[in-house]
Amino acid sequence: MPRQRATDAVAIRFDVVDRAEAISAITAATAALGGRIRTLATVRPIDGTPPLVEIELEVEGVGEDALVAALEAVDDVRTIHRTQALGTIFGKRIIVVGGGAQVAQVALGAVSEADRHNLRGERISVDTIPLVGEPAIAAAVRAVADLPRARLLVLAGSIMGGDISVAAEELRAVGIPIIALNMVGSITDHVDLVVSDPVQAGTMAVMAVADTATFDLERQRGRRY
Amino acid sequence: MPRQRATDAVAIRFDVVDRAEAISAITAATAALGGRIRTLATVRPIDGTPPLVEIELEVEGVGEDALVAALEAVDDVRTIHRTQALGTIFGKRIIVVGGGAQVAQVALGAVSEADRHNLRGERISVDTIPLVGEPAIAAAVRAVADLPRARLLVLAGSIMGGDISVAAEELRAVGIPIIALNMVGSITDHVDLVVSDPVQAGTMAVMAVADTATFDLERQRGRRY
Repeated sequence: MPRQRATDAVAIRFDVVDRAEAISAITAATAALGGRIRTLATVRPIDGTPPLVEIELEVEGVGEDALVAALEAVDDVRTIHRTQALGTIFGKRIIVVGGGAQVAQVALGAVSEADRHNLRGERISVDTIPLVGEPAIAAAVRAVADLPRARLLVLAGSIMGGDISVAAEELRAVGIPIIALNMVGSITDHVDLVVSDPVQAGTMAVMAVADTATFDLERQRGRRY
Repeated sequence: MPRQRATDAVAIRFDVVDRAEAISAITAATAALGGRIRTLATVRPIDGTPPLVEIELEVEGVGEDALVAALEAVDDVRTIHRTQALGTIFGKRIIVVGGGAQVAQVALGAVSEADRHNLRGERISVDTIPLVGEPAIAAAVRAVADLPRARLLVLAGSIMGGDISVAAEELRAVGIPIIALNMVGSITDHVDLVVSDPVQAGTMAVMAVADTATFDLERQRGRRY
């Protein structure tokens, strides 16, 4: 299995002293190699003297050995692990947000369908959070725009509207489509597709992003099932 | 609702010209403010001349206005949005990996239980991927160590062992506990807890990470239910 599939990014996880200058030294060393940082994520803090943080770094346009050598030359960097870019492991992400009962049923459909596509070489994850209340759900809808590899949002609930509908339009404007369950409220006028059965909604969500499926959300836009 | 809950990180999403020097300019500007970068994630590419990328940036130890002003001063930076740190929205992550049928049932339990805790102020997400085969699953187990905010892994399947068991011990060594379904293979000797019912496994996984629950995985270590 190749180390990089979905992207040509190399990925390294390392411990580094937790101070602002250390991160700058790392990004400067990466830039000096001509690498473009795709991800620099603090995975966890490590207590001690001095306190460390563990960081996952993904860089395009640079070789793995060169990147490791460059990081080893940074004073504040400690243990280095070679790892794999998260996109090659967890792939495209379907995000499911809403009430617990509906989220669980959408997840059932989506996970079952993702299983079928992942068996044929896709990598599709189904990431969920049950939430209640207009402010919390609207904030989560907006935050999907900040999630790497998020490809589609499913809104799973019984009543949604107001600021959630505003947030839905904002999310679609950055290119992330939305499927909503058929429900009370204005949300169903602000999504790409409305589906009554939550298991089918999850299934269609995965079909819409799978290269191994023949489902075109463009052709279904505005429909209700 | 405060803009920052789980961390004191400020979060910004912005478009920037896709070249190595631009990222360095951003990290240098952030360091000059004394900020510690917690996340710098490429969310999506934007075609055009020149090509841009959209980046989500989370920084601790700096005010939001100061960070926005510093980014506005970087030549290559375009549109800037103020957003919220992902930890405040999606919170702690339970990761579920394995066969589709079992993953879906674990997710059902975990989402239902997360719903109950999120109603009381927790933020717990349930993130899943159905996968088949020892190499793919072992790689996913190792990659959980690279996932920000991952707090616990549930291995949901019918047979796992070999390199998956090796990967499980590696993951536990970085401090992420594992619950496995009762199944064929050596994996059940290399996890913190074994649970036969997938819905209960998902429920216990959420209880183990929720501050609003009174379940101590330490006291259950090595048991089978």
